[in-house]
Amino acid sequence: MSYQAPLKDMLFVMNELAGLADIHTLPGCEDATPDTAEAVLEENAKFCGGVVAPLNWPSDKEPSFWHDGQVTTSKGFKEAFKAYGEAGWQGVQHPTEFGGQGLPKLLATPCIEMLNAASISFALVALLSDGAIEALLTAGSDEQKATYLEKLVSGKWTGTMNLTEPQAGSDLAAVRTRAEPQGDGTYKVFGTKIFITYGEHDLAENIVHLVLARTPDAPAGVKGISLFIVPKFLVNADGSLGERNDAHCVSIEHKLGIKASPTAVLQFGDHGGAIGTLVGEENRGLEYMFIMMNAARFGVGLQGIGLAERAYQQAVAFAKERVQSRDLAGSAGPVSIIHHPDVRRMLMSMRSQTEAARALAYVGAAISDVAHHHPDAQVRAESLATYEYLVPIIKGWATEMSQDVARDGVQVHGGMGFIEETGAAQHYRDAKILTIYEGTTAIQANDLVGRKTVRDGGAVAKAIIAQVRATEAQLGEFTGADFQAMQRHLAEGSAALEAVVEYVVANIKTDIKAVFAGSVPYLKLAGIVLGGWQMARAAVAAQQRLGEGSGDAAFYKAKISTARFFADHVLSQAPGLRAAIVDGSAGVMALSEEQF
Amino acid sequence: MSYQAPLKDMLFVMNELAGLADIHTLPGCEDATPDTAEAVLEENAKFCGGVVAPLNWPSDKEPSFWHDGQVTTSKGFKEAFKAYGEAGWQGVQHPTEFGGQGLPKLLATPCIEMLNAASISFALVALLSDGAIEALLTAGSDEQKATYLEKLVSGKWTGTMNLTEPQAGSDLAAVRTRAEPQGDGTYKVFGTKIFITYGEHDLAENIVHLVLARTPDAPAGVKGISLFIVPKFLVNADGSLGERNDAHCVSIEHKLGIKASPTAVLQFGDHGGAIGTLVGEENRGLEYMFIMMNAARFGVGLQGIGLAERAYQQAVAFAKERVQSRDLAGSAGPVSIIHHPDVRRMLMSMRSQTEAARALAYVGAAISDVAHHHPDAQVRAESLATYEYLVPIIKGWATEMSQDVARDGVQVHGGMGFIEETGAAQHYRDAKILTIYEGTTAIQANDLVGRKTVRDGGAVAKAIIAQVRATEAQLGEFTGADFQAMQRHLAEGSAALEAVVEYVVANIKTDIKAVFAGSVPYLKLAGIVLGGWQMARAAVAAQQRLGEGSGDAAFYKAKISTARFFADHVLSQAPGLRAAIVDGSAGVMALSEEQF
Repeated sequence: MSYQAPLKDMLFVMNELAGLADIHTLPGCEDATPDTAEAVLEENAKFCGGVVAPLNWPSDKEPSFWHDGQVTTSKGFKEAFKAYGEAGWQGVQHPTEFGGQGLPKLLATPCIEMLNAASISFALVALLSDGAIEALLTAGSDEQKATYLEKLVSGKWTGTMNLTEPQAGSDLAAVRTRAEPQGDGTYKVFGTKIFITYGEHDLAENIVHLVLARTPDAPAGVKGISLFIVPKFLVNADGSLGERNDAHCVSIEHKLGIKASPTAVLQFGDHGGAIGTLVGEENRGLEYMFIMMNAARFGVGLQGIGLAERAYQQAVAFAKERVQSRDLAGSAGPVSIIHHPDVRRMLMSMRSQTEAARALAYVGAAISDVAHHHPDAQVRAESLATYEYLVPIIKGWATEMSQDVARDGVQVHGGMGFIEETGAAQHYRDAKILTIYEGTTAIQANDLVGRKTVRDGGAVAKAIIAQVRATEAQLGEFTGADFQAMQRHLAEGSAALEAVVEYVVANIKTDIKAVFAGSVPYLKLAGIVLGGWQMARAAVAAQQRLGEGSGDAAFYKAKISTARFFADHVLSQAPGLRAAIVDGSAGVMALSEEQF
Repeated sequence: MSYQAPLKDMLFVMNELAGLADIHTLPGCEDATPDTAEAVLEENAKFCGGVVAPLNWPSDKEPSFWHDGQVTTSKGFKEAFKAYGEAGWQGVQHPTEFGGQGLPKLLATPCIEMLNAASISFALVALLSDGAIEALLTAGSDEQKATYLEKLVSGKWTGTMNLTEPQAGSDLAAVRTRAEPQGDGTYKVFGTKIFITYGEHDLAENIVHLVLARTPDAPAGVKGISLFIVPKFLVNADGSLGERNDAHCVSIEHKLGIKASPTAVLQFGDHGGAIGTLVGEENRGLEYMFIMMNAARFGVGLQGIGLAERAYQQAVAFAKERVQSRDLAGSAGPVSIIHHPDVRRMLMSMRSQTEAARALAYVGAAISDVAHHHPDAQVRAESLATYEYLVPIIKGWATEMSQDVARDGVQVHGGMGFIEETGAAQHYRDAKILTIYEGTTAIQANDLVGRKTVRDGGAVAKAIIAQVRATEAQLGEFTGADFQAMQRHLAEGSAALEAVVEYVVANIKTDIKAVFAGSVPYLKLAGIVLGGWQMARAAVAAQQRLGEGSGDAAFYKAKISTARFFADHVLSQAPGLRAAIVDGSAGVMALSEEQF
């Protein structure tokens, strides 16, 4: 159950597919040379593999627990989080001004993948702090930045996102928590928040809760929500900790997975009111929260990729070790099960989907860096639109994929997979939250259809499809069955995706329910086509390197075979998904409520 | 978390698709009139829904536990199993000669589905007893039958299957447990068996272990395995219980799911030898065990269907109750989430796959009844071949399907689904064993390829495909988009299945690994095509009834819409699977072991 970061694949993707050399030339990204990137990744891999990964299974067995308002985290978490902060890992992508390393997202991305492969439960505290930092950087006052950012970036304090209430899950319009202005610039906050990840813990001196609430005169719905900072301990003017605030953890949940990560019910204001300060302007809270949420959604996509990689590594190790049955091609004695074709098929499915999602996510990270750092405003705007198209796909598809992979991971282990001590089952349990939190797959798909496809008439989607077509043409320049098969499946895939984009745009006004009935299949289709596109680009790059005779030939050959597998076994589902979306809405909505 | 047996659908399938009226005319099946069937199902539904279903979640929370060699089952199991035996449910399908009800498999099948929907953990003890009864009926001596059968059929005693050892999972050739003849007709058995479901418990007075072991001079491999009865308590000549046998439970497993079902490690012969008697002839143990196993495999398929139904019902109940977000088509206030298209899509996916698998399984049960009871030997032989083709598909596909359904079931619940108390997560955990025990999906697929397709050159498969084509023609007799879509997808599906059968037969000798690389996709393809076939037959029957103006119009209309959904969203995957199987083996086996 150890974890070795797949540095070779990570660096291949960064250099060959995501254009690290170009990112490094952007203003503000000059430090991110390929050599620095390699050094940072190697250090991070050591920390994640050596310090965090060993905590994953023990912390599932002995999760965080609540007693009398306090949460004690699993053994080893406290020391590991201290080390994480001190080594500067919390600050990788944050501004140097507040103590961060100021590295581009493309470099932070593999670090986040590694931390999540090591332990999703552990990584969550860092992910939430990242979100809080983003929100304060964007919308916080100078005073708020001065008070909170350095502490968050250093890992001395941590952040949380307080959105959900019992009646307000996916629908934030239903938020009821209220914030009453006290006339002195502060507010008193009253309400109950649920599902608050690391809402209470013992890893840091203070917890910076970012809380959605309504002021007394706020309009109804999402336009009346404001964002507040409500720290666990109030902060004195000199930065030292003051009084305990009236924000208390009344319980934590008993969950299917990520058990070491405490999921809190927080009660604000039961003892007179929790003191908070407004972030930005009143009634713009949702907008600010979306800043956190978009960063967090991308991060949850990386959780899926990290979890899939970990499950894959564990399955490979078992398949190489476990001896059972003869080789089909006729050896005498029993062989390790990695020789059996269906075990191979499962491992290749796990591997190819993980690699495809990684490639798409890292390419997305690079596009985000261009969107933030490129000198040309037009390029920035186009890149931002492309990145924003990709975010729901990376979040939705990579996490759904991680559940397929974790399921295969258990299956490779046979009966041993069902025994908790083996550890494969933990990934299967942990993975299930990833398609739910930070917006369910349906919420991602709504975003993909509404804001990301319909709003611009499919323009960004079609621009991306044009790039896919350019890769198809490149594939045709190579001979051999592998490249032919990839070209055929990618062409069918891009045709399917284009047809679906056109269907969505053409039908949204006349039959909105039919379009949304196909929203999750559309997201899945986009995921496998764009993932397949990246695998095809990877195969092209690998073939070029092989032609040059440079680098690790075994790695490049494996990459081509893995890309071929993805095309035959995953991308081949594209035409069926198109049929389900374009022709398949009738059955979805046909039944009345009573017929269920 | 209650369970209402879907009696309307069950009876529809039995009467309209599985031909209960014909089964009832077979010699020995005369008691199974449609009226009797309905009465039996109603009684069983009351027992399963009222007595067993309420135990499911509490027993997961407080599972069976081991102490000092004894296993205490979860609260309520003892009383429920006593009631189960006393009401005669264990004996539904077993001969009246030994106290059973002697009803056909078609009637026992919905009863088994219901029991598993109520609680898989509970149902397992009955399933294992069924297997032991089958084996003794076929291969037991008159004395063994007299000693054990009535007690097993009445539920006073229970049975187990002891196959697996630490080094012998899927590969029974590796079994090492030995049996030494004592010269008095008995044997002393020595060895360790693992993963023994209900290998120890407190539900019955005695446990009849059926144990695979080798006699001293047995040949190596599977041809040297014999089957022994090793009871927990020896049985005196008068049928009373004698001494405690040397078969002891040294521990039970800590599992991902089905926690209430104790999974035992059994130690035979640590204190001088466990006394056993040979079943049938020496070295034919595997053959006899396959009798149990085939019955059990079909039964595990029903576990998948029962679990899927339960997960579906729970998701529907939540979706009707949970209010969140406005209706897309524009109502003012928030609505229950069943109004949201993606929730609908998930519910329809769960529903349509469950109904399709149910239809296929019940039709399979009816074919098994024909195979055992038809007066014409030729008809019996053909039916047996058809049934045996279907068994790995029903086991493999229905259980894989149940994991998809359970996953969607959690997803419909959103964040609440991840909280154990909600109960949706239990199905997700429980489902994972179903594709593993009684032969993994890969083992089912090996059987489908090897014994069931290659051995007869694809003859049975093609005869079934010819029947699918007849249904396609029938679909063409109806007008409307639903029937057109079903016909198109079913035609593409049967073409894909035929192409794959031909590919398997043509390539097994020249490229065995390529064929087996596609074995699980072939099984999945066969499942969705044959499931789609049954849904199409169901739609035809429903349309005919609607035309007659008889029966429950809302039910028939829902059946047609559900069949349409299945065609568009599930059956539409068939061409992609064909591509993966026929063209996709290259990528599966391309990597060397070192490249993983």
